[in-house]
Amino acid sequence: MAKHALSVTRDEDFAQWYQAVIAEADLAEESGVRGCMVIRPWGYGIWERIQRLLDDRIKETGHDNCYFPIFIPLSNFEKEAEHVDGFAKEMAVVTHHRLVQDESGKLVPDPEAKLEEPLVVRPTSETVIGNAFARWIQSWRDLPVLINQWANVVRWEMRTRMFLRTSEFLWQEGHTAHATEEEAREETLRMLEVYRSFAEECVAMPVIAGEKPENERFPGADATWSIEAMMQDGKALQAGTSHFLGRTFAQAQNIKFQNRDGQFEHAWTTSWGMSTRMIGGMIMTHGDDDGLCVPPRIAPQQIIIVPLLRGGPEDEQIKRYCNELWYELRKQTAFGEPLRVWMDTREVKPVTKRWGWVKKGAPIVIEVGGRDVAGGNVSVVRRDRLYREDGKLDSVAVPRGELLGKAKAILESMQTRMLLGARERMEASISRSITDFDKLADYFDKNGKYPGWVEVQWSRPTGAALDKVVERLKAHKLTFRNVPLNAKPADGACIFTGEPAVERILVARAY
Amino acid sequence: MAKHALSVTRDEDFAQWYQAVIAEADLAEESGVRGCMVIRPWGYGIWERIQRLLDDRIKETGHDNCYFPIFIPLSNFEKEAEHVDGFAKEMAVVTHHRLVQDESGKLVPDPEAKLEEPLVVRPTSETVIGNAFARWIQSWRDLPVLINQWANVVRWEMRTRMFLRTSEFLWQEGHTAHATEEEAREETLRMLEVYRSFAEECVAMPVIAGEKPENERFPGADATWSIEAMMQDGKALQAGTSHFLGRTFAQAQNIKFQNRDGQFEHAWTTSWGMSTRMIGGMIMTHGDDDGLCVPPRIAPQQIIIVPLLRGGPEDEQIKRYCNELWYELRKQTAFGEPLRVWMDTREVKPVTKRWGWVKKGAPIVIEVGGRDVAGGNVSVVRRDRLYREDGKLDSVAVPRGELLGKAKAILESMQTRMLLGARERMEASISRSITDFDKLADYFDKNGKYPGWVEVQWSRPTGAALDKVVERLKAHKLTFRNVPLNAKPADGACIFTGEPAVERILVARAY
Repeated sequence: MAKHALSVTRDEDFAQWYQAVIAEADLAEESGVRGCMVIRPWGYGIWERIQRLLDDRIKETGHDNCYFPIFIPLSNFEKEAEHVDGFAKEMAVVTHHRLVQDESGKLVPDPEAKLEEPLVVRPTSETVIGNAFARWIQSWRDLPVLINQWANVVRWEMRTRMFLRTSEFLWQEGHTAHATEEEAREETLRMLEVYRSFAEECVAMPVIAGEKPENERFPGADATWSIEAMMQDGKALQAGTSHFLGRTFAQAQNIKFQNRDGQFEHAWTTSWGMSTRMIGGMIMTHGDDDGLCVPPRIAPQQIIIVPLLRGGPEDEQIKRYCNELWYELRKQTAFGEPLRVWMDTREVKPVTKRWGWVKKGAPIVIEVGGRDVAGGNVSVVRRDRLYREDGKLDSVAVPRGELLGKAKAILESMQTRMLLGARERMEASISRSITDFDKLADYFDKNGKYPGWVEVQWSRPTGAALDKVVERLKAHKLTFRNVPLNAKPADGACIFTGEPAVERILVARAY
Repeated sequence: MAKHALSVTRDEDFAQWYQAVIAEADLAEESGVRGCMVIRPWGYGIWERIQRLLDDRIKETGHDNCYFPIFIPLSNFEKEAEHVDGFAKEMAVVTHHRLVQDESGKLVPDPEAKLEEPLVVRPTSETVIGNAFARWIQSWRDLPVLINQWANVVRWEMRTRMFLRTSEFLWQEGHTAHATEEEAREETLRMLEVYRSFAEECVAMPVIAGEKPENERFPGADATWSIEAMMQDGKALQAGTSHFLGRTFAQAQNIKFQNRDGQFEHAWTTSWGMSTRMIGGMIMTHGDDDGLCVPPRIAPQQIIIVPLLRGGPEDEQIKRYCNELWYELRKQTAFGEPLRVWMDTREVKPVTKRWGWVKKGAPIVIEVGGRDVAGGNVSVVRRDRLYREDGKLDSVAVPRGELLGKAKAILESMQTRMLLGARERMEASISRSITDFDKLADYFDKNGKYPGWVEVQWSRPTGAALDKVVERLKAHKLTFRNVPLNAKPADGACIFTGEPAVERILVARAY
C-alpha cells in the first residue's frame, strides 16, 4: 500500500481526516475561545481569494457593499416572530458595557453598567438592514436597493466543527428590496445562479441548485433556495442560500414606498449568503490522503519555487536561476490575472518544504537544484497528479522554457479537470431509481459507507404532513436537500405519501 | 458671497459642516444602535479603496492576513494589568448565549444560559493574538511572526462622532513577534513609515510621524508612535499608531522561544493599527463648502459620466456617445490601475446629479448633451477647481480626444496637488517660535478659531512631573501630539520645566 502524507486516510476515518487536513495545511486551529477558530494565513488567503472573486460577481450584478452594526437591539430583533423563533436559541447577548474588579480583584461585568436594552450580536442582519431600508426607501424611484456586506456573524452552536459550523464565522450577506414580487423572485434566482457559477467556476465544486422544502426555509422566508455540494463521503453540504422573503420583513420593519400610482405599499425583499463554510466544502471536495488540493483560481499562491540549496558554491547560481524564474512567471497570467508565485527561502529542509506544500495543496511546486540549473531544467510536482503509475512521486525535470510556456495551460486545465472530476463523482453517486421508502432507508442504512444522494419523486406535502415525512427521514439520519432546478418532471407516485408526485427532491445525509 | 452646495460652511460651524458633508455625500448615517453607524456605499467604497491599497503595502512588507475570534475570555484579557486598566472601562460584555420570552412575551437573556465566563467583544486583539503566538512560537526559527487582521472592534464610547469615534469601528491591526528588541523596534518604525507614506500618497493627507509621550502610550506598550494629521480647523487627528510592546505582552501571554544558544527567552512584540477614522481625516483635510473632495486614488469612482437626456430624438446618439466614452476611458489607467468610470443613468434631473457628485467629491464629472455630441466635445467639471475666478461654475467643453488624452494626467496631478495644498496649509499652521508656557496658552486661547499646532522644546519629564504638565495643558484643552521624527534637535529650555530641552514636541487641540 502506498504511504501518504497524512496520518489518517479518508477511508479510515473521514471526520478525523478532515481535521488532519486542516491541521497539516495550517488552515485554521481551535482558538481556545468556545466554538471560535483562528484562521491562519493559508486558510485566510483562500478566503481572500473567495472574497475577491465572489465580490466581483456581486458587484457585476449591480450590488454595492455597505457596513451595518454588529449589534441588534432586542426590540428591533423582536419584530419578526418567526425570525425570533429561528434564531433566539443560539445568540450571544451583550448585557453590560463595562468591567469592574470585584473584592477579590477579579474582573466582572460592572452592575452599574448594565444596558437598558440588551444587544444581540448579529446572527444575520435582516432586521438591522431592514431598519435602514425603511429609512432609505420612500418612492418607487428608490427601488431596487441592492446591498451586500462582508461581515462576521455569531450563532451560538453547541457542536462546532472548523469551517463547517463555528460560533463566529465570516460571510457575505446580500439584502435587496424591490417594487414587485416578480423582480424580487428574479433577484433570488439571479443570486442563486451567481453562487452556482462561482462554486463551480472558482472553487471547482459542482453543486445542485434548487429550492429547499418548507421545513428547511430560512426563518421568516417565503422560499429558500440553495446550492448543495457532495462531499467525498457522500454527504451533502449546503454551500450557499438565497431567500425570497416576500413582504414579511418589509411588514415587520415598515419598508414602504409610494408606487407610480401614488399608493403606498410594502416592498419585496430578498437575502442571500455564502460563508467560510465554503472552505470546508473545498477541503472535502478536493482533498486526498496527502492533504489539501486547492483549485488554482482560489490558491493564495499557485506556484511555489523551492531552491535546493546545499551550502555549496553553486547556491548563488541556483538562487539567481530561481529569481529569474520567479520574475518570468510573475509576468504571466492565468484566468486573466497575474500568476501568484512564491519563493520558499525558509531555513527548512527541502523535503519538509515539498511535503509541506503538498499538504497545503499548492497547485504546482517547482524544485531547482544544481543539476536543474546545469541542464536548464526545473523539477515540477503537480498537486493533481502527485504519483506515477508505479506509486512513486511524479517529479519531472522539464526544460525551463517549456514550463514557462505551459504554466498558464497547466493551471487552467487543472482547474477544469478538478471540476469535471468532482462532477463525475457526484453524478455517479446520485441514485434516481428508488421508488419506495423502505428501499430508500435500506439504501442508506446498508449500502456501504458512502451511499451518496437519492433523488426521489414526491407530492410536496406541507405543514403537519411534511413534518411527519421529515420525522421518518430523521429516523434514518436523512434530510431533504433541495428540489433541483434542472430535475426531470415528476411522472410517478410520491415515495412518502403514495399520492401523484409533483416534483423531484434530493435526500441525503448532510453536514 | 458665493453660494455653496452645503447649508453650512466650515467657517460658520466646523462640527456641523462635518456632519453635513457626511450626510450630503451619503457616506454614513446613524444606525439607531447606540454609537454605531451604517456605512453607506460611497463611504464603504472609499474604505474598500483604503483597504486595498493599505493591504498591498502590508503584504509587501511581509505580513500575512489571518482572522482571530471576536470574543476574548475575561481570564485571557486579565493577564496584562495595564492593558486592563486602559480598556476595561469601555467594552461590550457578553454574558448570555440565549434569549427566552418572559411572562409578558418579551425577549430577555435566558437566566439558564448564563456564560460561566463572560466574554469581551474585542476592543483590540493583543491578548487573543498573543495567545495564538504562544502556541505558534517555539524556536528562533519560528520568528519573526508577521500577522495582520482586518476586523471590527468595539469600544464603548460615551460621546461618539461618525468615523472619528464610534462604538464599533473597522480597522486593520498588525501584530508581530521578534527574536530581538532591535528587530521589533525596526518593525515598529517600518509600519509607522508605511502609515505615513500611505496617508500621504493615497489619501493625500500630510502627516507628522513621531513618538507619543509616555502619557499617550497604548496601555501596556513600551513606546507608541503615531502619524498626526492637521484638520482644516487646525485640530490634530491621530490617524494611525504603531506600538513597540517590549516583552510586556510576551511575558503576560507566555510567548517564549528557544534561541540559537538553546536558551528560552520571551519574544519582543509590536502592534499597529489604522481604522475607518482615516475617512474622517480625509473629510476634514479635503472637504470644502461644496462637500467632500475624494483624492482620486481612493475614489470609488474617479470619473462620472452624466448623459443629458431630454426625451428627444437625439437621446440615442447621446447614449451611444457616452457608452463609447465610458468604454474608452475604462481602457486607460491612472496610478497603475484601470480608471474607475461610472455612467449615471438614474432617472434624476441632471442638475441634481451634478451637485450630487460634487457633494460626494467625485474627482471628475463629465456631462454630455446634444451640443457636445455635435461638436465632438464633452463638458468637464473638476472637483478640485469647481469655480472660475468670477465665481461661476467652471464647466468647460473640451474636445473628446483631448479629455481621453489627459484623463490620467488630470487625476494624477489632482492627487499630487491635493497633497501639496494640504501640506502647505499644515506647514503654515505650525508655529515653532513659542518659548514660554503662558504665550503658548495665549496663542491657543486668543489666536482666532484655527490656531493650528505649536512645536515646543521640552525636557521629556516622566511620571508625576509629566502628569503635572499634561494637567496644565488640559486646562487649555491642549494635548501633546508627538515628538516629530524629523524635528530639529533641541537647543533651548523646556517650555514647561525650564530645564534644558532634549527634544521638540507638538502641542495641539485634537479630535
